[in-house]
Amino acid sequence: MSLTTLEWRDNAIRIIDQTCLPRKLVYLEIRNIKGLSQAIKELKVRGAPALGAASSLGVYLGIKNSPAKNFTQFKNELDKVIAYLGSSRPTARNLFWGLEQARQAALANQDKPVSRIKELILQKALEIIKIDQQSCREIGKYGAELIKDGDTILTVCNAGILATIDYGTALGVIYSAKAQGKKIKVFACETRPLLQGARLTAWELLKNGVDTALICDNTAGFLMRQGRINCVIAGADRIAANGDAANKIGTLGLAILSQYHKIPFYIAAPSTTFDLNIKSGKEIIIEQRSREEVVSLFSRQPIAPEGVKVYNPAFDVTVHELISAIITDKGVLRPPYQENIKRLIQ
Amino acid sequence: MSLTTLEWRDNAIRIIDQTCLPRKLVYLEIRNIKGLSQAIKELKVRGAPALGAASSLGVYLGIKNSPAKNFTQFKNELDKVIAYLGSSRPTARNLFWGLEQARQAALANQDKPVSRIKELILQKALEIIKIDQQSCREIGKYGAELIKDGDTILTVCNAGILATIDYGTALGVIYSAKAQGKKIKVFACETRPLLQGARLTAWELLKNGVDTALICDNTAGFLMRQGRINCVIAGADRIAANGDAANKIGTLGLAILSQYHKIPFYIAAPSTTFDLNIKSGKEIIIEQRSREEVVSLFSRQPIAPEGVKVYNPAFDVTVHELISAIITDKGVLRPPYQENIKRLIQ
Repeated sequence: MSLTTLEWRDNAIRIIDQTCLPRKLVYLEIRNIKGLSQAIKELKVRGAPALGAASSLGVYLGIKNSPAKNFTQFKNELDKVIAYLGSSRPTARNLFWGLEQARQAALANQDKPVSRIKELILQKALEIIKIDQQSCREIGKYGAELIKDGDTILTVCNAGILATIDYGTALGVIYSAKAQGKKIKVFACETRPLLQGARLTAWELLKNGVDTALICDNTAGFLMRQGRINCVIAGADRIAANGDAANKIGTLGLAILSQYHKIPFYIAAPSTTFDLNIKSGKEIIIEQRSREEVVSLFSRQPIAPEGVKVYNPAFDVTVHELISAIITDKGVLRPPYQENIKRLIQ
Repeated sequence: MSLTTLEWRDNAIRIIDQTCLPRKLVYLEIRNIKGLSQAIKELKVRGAPALGAASSLGVYLGIKNSPAKNFTQFKNELDKVIAYLGSSRPTARNLFWGLEQARQAALANQDKPVSRIKELILQKALEIIKIDQQSCREIGKYGAELIKDGDTILTVCNAGILATIDYGTALGVIYSAKAQGKKIKVFACETRPLLQGARLTAWELLKNGVDTALICDNTAGFLMRQGRINCVIAGADRIAANGDAANKIGTLGLAILSQYHKIPFYIAAPSTTFDLNIKSGKEIIIEQRSREEVVSLFSRQPIAPEGVKVYNPAFDVTVHELISAIITDKGVLRPPYQENIKRLIQ
């Protein structure tokens, strides 16, 4: 299936509005940083890899009409744009990586005319899109080696086409294994509160002919207990130097359930998701989202009593001891992670 | 708060229709077994202990207008009523226990006139209501000893006022500890797909002034990781002779997460929930419910793509190795369960 989650077209970021799925496939054109920040906050565009491309393109949207006459003036505006976009969501490493790439493109070319620097920032953003496409293919290739014909795979949230520029990280492994002729079944955790598993993963897997069944998040343990899961693959939003991986809330729980049932638990992520500046998951800032997401599903009738407190973290951290391997675009990382990450990821 | 989940009034079973909560407190009068079976299937009345009382009262509803002239005729009708009610839901032990109590009341009095046997069946059902009230108080008393001042307790589904005749099993422990002056905080798992935690547990805890926060089911592991949970208490629908306990889907997962984080995991249930005829949880029949419960929350807009398969078991089995203690109306059971259950439960 040819789906383009995010692209640069007609001087705008064109995205699939993921809040409309699975009911409607709606495209949205984003022409300014306010629109982009809102789309990121509201999860119209989401997924760590896609956010890397979106944020770097966003920098270009933010500075392309800058009247700055010299680099000092330009740099001042650039910093504001980057700070603004950086405040949209705190956890995904790739978002900050995309911003940093744009900033570096400017810094490395500060001797050039402002108009040229603008072009080079766009060029860098388009390069990031290409890198992400390539990363997905590499992750798929390396990951597929871990998948056997006939495997049943459990996944969480959406780390697929809709989270990347190409065919995904965790789901990329599945698409790649399927393309090799392996028969694969997938159980998708619905992923409360925003149901990315039910709305997005089930949707794209079905569209691509993958045998898929949906479960409520609390059903994973019972499925494993029955011996029906061969491995778990999840994406990641940020990976620390020791291998601790932040990902959608519930991922840590799946990793513990996997260890208890002796099932391999894999993280699949591009090398841009690694943040070697942080030693462990303890330093990862976890985004807290609104109570409304939990108590009224997509603004419909309340499903909880008025006034009840809600704890709604968007992510959790899976400690590295629970991760069997990290599938990256540069190869499959195994413990000891501290050393192997340092060796593989620059 | 004085709430009566289920009572016998004006020749009818009067229940709180739990599908209307938390929006409206609606009472429903059930006057025949078809209505009762439907109410049980649709979870208008639910909770293993409440189902025990409901099913025994249901037997009376089913036979009170019987034209049978002798015991043989009467027994024939009685068996049909019991078989019919027994087919409404397969997992909760108490439902079958309630039916069996009614049957025994008839068998023990087969020499009496049919009209008298009918009275004795009603009398038995009303006794079961009293026994359940007493059980809740005893469970509360024993369980509260395990709770320390300042504890934060995680619970799942609803094992409270709305699941029993009195103040609940798992929540009974909380109410009892609170009544002793202990300061308690509760995190309630929302409990997909039907959200009994969000709709019912959060509602009754708030009504009773318990400091309560709601979480999505997948958030439990991350809460435990942060050291914010002191113990987990869940109810049970059926407990095997070895201590394996069937309860709402997700309970097994919570028990595994508790073990990993070295947090006590308690089951609270009346002795009527034990089924000594089955050796282990493997023999417990797990009810499979409709895909609609998962893909369209309360018949509103679909939250998953058309045609996706769904695996929707209503319960899972928590293996006894993962249970720190079983709090019953006859005392707190600790491992080895096989022997201790046999000793405590007749």
